[in-house]
Amino acid sequence: MTPVITLTTDFGTTDAYVASMKGVILSINPKAVIVDICHSVQPQNILQAAFILSTTHRYFPEGTIHVAVVDPGVGSQRQSIVLKTPQAFFVAPDNGILSYVVNELQPLSGGNLTGALPQSTIIRQLMPGIEAVTLTNPDFWHHPVSSTFHGRDIFAPVAAHLSLGTPLRSLGDSISSIHVYPIPRPCRDAEGNLIGHVLHIDNFGNCITSFKSNDLPDNKVTVIICNQHINGLSKFYAEKTGLAAIIGSSGYLEISLQNGNAAAFLKAKVGDEVRVKQIINPI
Amino acid sequence: MTPVITLTTDFGTTDAYVASMKGVILSINPKAVIVDICHSVQPQNILQAAFILSTTHRYFPEGTIHVAVVDPGVGSQRQSIVLKTPQAFFVAPDNGILSYVVNELQPLSGGNLTGALPQSTIIRQLMPGIEAVTLTNPDFWHHPVSSTFHGRDIFAPVAAHLSLGTPLRSLGDSISSIHVYPIPRPCRDAEGNLIGHVLHIDNFGNCITSFKSNDLPDNKVTVIICNQHINGLSKFYAEKTGLAAIIGSSGYLEISLQNGNAAAFLKAKVGDEVRVKQIINPI
Amino acid sequence: MTPVITLTTDFGTTDAYVASMKGVILSINPKAVIVDICHSVQPQNILQAAFILSTTHRYFPEGTIHVAVVDPGVGSQRQSIVLKTPQAFFVAPDNGILSYVVNELQPLSGGNLTGALPQSTIIRQLMPGIEAVTLTNPDFWHHPVSSTFHGRDIFAPVAAHLSLGTPLRSLGDSISSIHVYPIPRPCRDAEGNLIGHVLHIDNFGNCITSFKSNDLPDNKVTVIICNQHINGLSKFYAEKTGLAAIIGSSGYLEISLQNGNAAAFLKAKVGDEVRVKQIINPI
Repeated sequence: MTPVITLTTDFGTTDAYVASMKGVILSINPKAVIVDICHSVQPQNILQAAFILSTTHRYFPEGTIHVAVVDPGVGSQRQSIVLKTPQAFFVAPDNGILSYVVNELQPLSGGNLTGALPQSTIIRQLMPGIEAVTLTNPDFWHHPVSSTFHGRDIFAPVAAHLSLGTPLRSLGDSISSIHVYPIPRPCRDAEGNLIGHVLHIDNFGNCITSFKSNDLPDNKVTVIICNQHINGLSKFYAEKTGLAAIIGSSGYLEISLQNGNAAAFLKAKVGDEVRVKQIINPI
Repeated sequence: MTPVITLTTDFGTTDAYVASMKGVILSINPKAVIVDICHSVQPQNILQAAFILSTTHRYFPEGTIHVAVVDPGVGSQRQSIVLKTPQAFFVAPDNGILSYVVNELQPLSGGNLTGALPQSTIIRQLMPGIEAVTLTNPDFWHHPVSSTFHGRDIFAPVAAHLSLGTPLRSLGDSISSIHVYPIPRPCRDAEGNLIGHVLHIDNFGNCITSFKSNDLPDNKVTVIICNQHINGLSKFYAEKTGLAAIIGSSGYLEISLQNGNAAAFLKAKVGDEVRVKQIINPI
Repeated sequence: MTPVITLTTDFGTTDAYVASMKGVILSINPKAVIVDICHSVQPQNILQAAFILSTTHRYFPEGTIHVAVVDPGVGSQRQSIVLKTPQAFFVAPDNGILSYVVNELQPLSGGNLTGALPQSTIIRQLMPGIEAVTLTNPDFWHHPVSSTFHGRDIFAPVAAHLSLGTPLRSLGDSISSIHVYPIPRPCRDAEGNLIGHVLHIDNFGNCITSFKSNDLPDNKVTVIICNQHINGLSKFYAEKTGLAAIIGSSGYLEISLQNGNAAAFLKAKVGDEVRVKQIINPI
């Protein structure tokens, strides 16, 4: 079993919260290889963490253990879980933080066709091949367990024990469903245009939208965002000056600005509507 | 001996200072496991680093080597030391950065009862079981030694040599006292209320105060901060809306705001006074 | 061969871009030790990354593989290369990001004597002992290769393969020159003063200038920056109050402010002119 454990949190880097999780992990498995995915998720922004995690987990070795903790409900009734997919383990609160991961494996039929970001979770049955347990066995926790920091006291030690080969079932009770946000899918307006929205703005100001490459009819499209029209798709950032629409490295349509920050230029923010028009060639 | 080495600095993450320390460590001990605790300590804020380090070191494996470098006096007369406790090594300038670590092991009798943040260090004798040396043996340094970056040239290589099993005494001369800030303890005002202050504001805006759980009489308290009154203690963040007072994951009373930033809401800052009133039940 | 791989990018820490590179590396070489140098290079600022990398690479073990990706031209005609020096490997786009590294080994005779930051690259022949290849062999890439993220799909996997001992020549075609920015050297004005400029501003606000210690006549100098005059050189930060000129830990003259932020105080920015006057003692 590979000992890679990744961490995705909203803990920031100005405190020692992340370090405490690492100390707990290394106390249990000194050979664990710990990789930070992101700790600057906006506080309490579960969907943002869910998206970020979904762009990276498939690049890790098989059997990697991904710990994701954005957990405003820590200490309350929300459950803690491990989800096991054919490729990886995910250790997290059951609050929707695994929405994109689950949606990739078993896309919501029909989906959320409003195009808008979801406000609340739904319960989804897990398909065969995906297992999950709730973390109910305190033998694998760090004691005493605080009521405000399960990242350190439950998720980190459980991940460390998984990395030592502890069987999933010994961690707690098997469950057949988890909470997920219905991931929005582009829909059509009355004129047949595709409507999606901005999912994420990255470090460069690229506006990553909810359109995936196979949502787009072909290269002859106009993308409309914040009242700007962008004609056609580009292949790489340096291809043209000004705004460009491009299929980015995670397979989503993104809006970039050559040597600039598209989001700042457009004053775009997460949730903003993006429209795709098919260009009809006059004969 | 475990090879975990942690780093706590005010070097930030926009330069290569931290990386140079890691390069020096790995050049001496390629098997060292290096963990970042925090590098965004406010420049020259020794007490902030001291506090952050104190919230995490006990979660690391026994024998971990903690390097802490907030060092405005680098190159001057201030000494460099290693402190060895029953659980860990601490490699640092002797400028008060180990104040909380030492205070946990040997609390200052009486303590600093003003409730206010200390402005200068005092000399404390180390109790039996705690050893310390000054770093005077250049055999364990990286040469040439710059006069502005002992993190790279003295602290990092000394930590790496410790991780290889180099005996403490070979690093330099034994000392029996070090410099510490007197950690403030809550005191009482004329009306019998407990007075403390804000020690730290975390990434979520939680205001961590100088009250520890056993400073508080019981659950029937009112906490007063920035003219706001908070009645009773909560157990976890999601328990009630608005401001809450809660014993946090490091054992300190903290003020939080559900799904919000308490410090921004209160306009609170480190050093602000916090008052705890016991609620007298009318019979 | 040592398995240390370092990463220097402008990817920031709010996305999973860096993590994806690490996942790809660990999938190929699970024993690789990955060290972050800096990910907060200003987006597209190739020279800043070049400078930061140059301050740290020599502190890493021999054979370390340094991956540097600030790559606005990703997907365009710019080439990807590995440069092998007697001490290390550098995996990067051929866009000038290795300018300082190459300039240290084979200083530009005459140099860029304008004192100003260079705006475009020149082609430099590599001296004997420095080898380079263009990355043309897709056997060592991660597939499918995106046109916007060669950090993940080309540079990371190539570094991982190098860390496993893959010979340089199997990665692609040998080349004898690369693109570099001509690193500016201090020049003299009509009155014989040395003219340089601010190369970098660090986390503390220290203004690191283009003067190296051997550019300075002796200790009897006055440094002029932002209309402030600083007389003489200091040895360490705590030596004097106010502004000080000091040879910093990377060998450059830097301007610091005791317990303060010199850049903020001076309103200095990268590229600002710095003048060094020799003090003539009256006899």
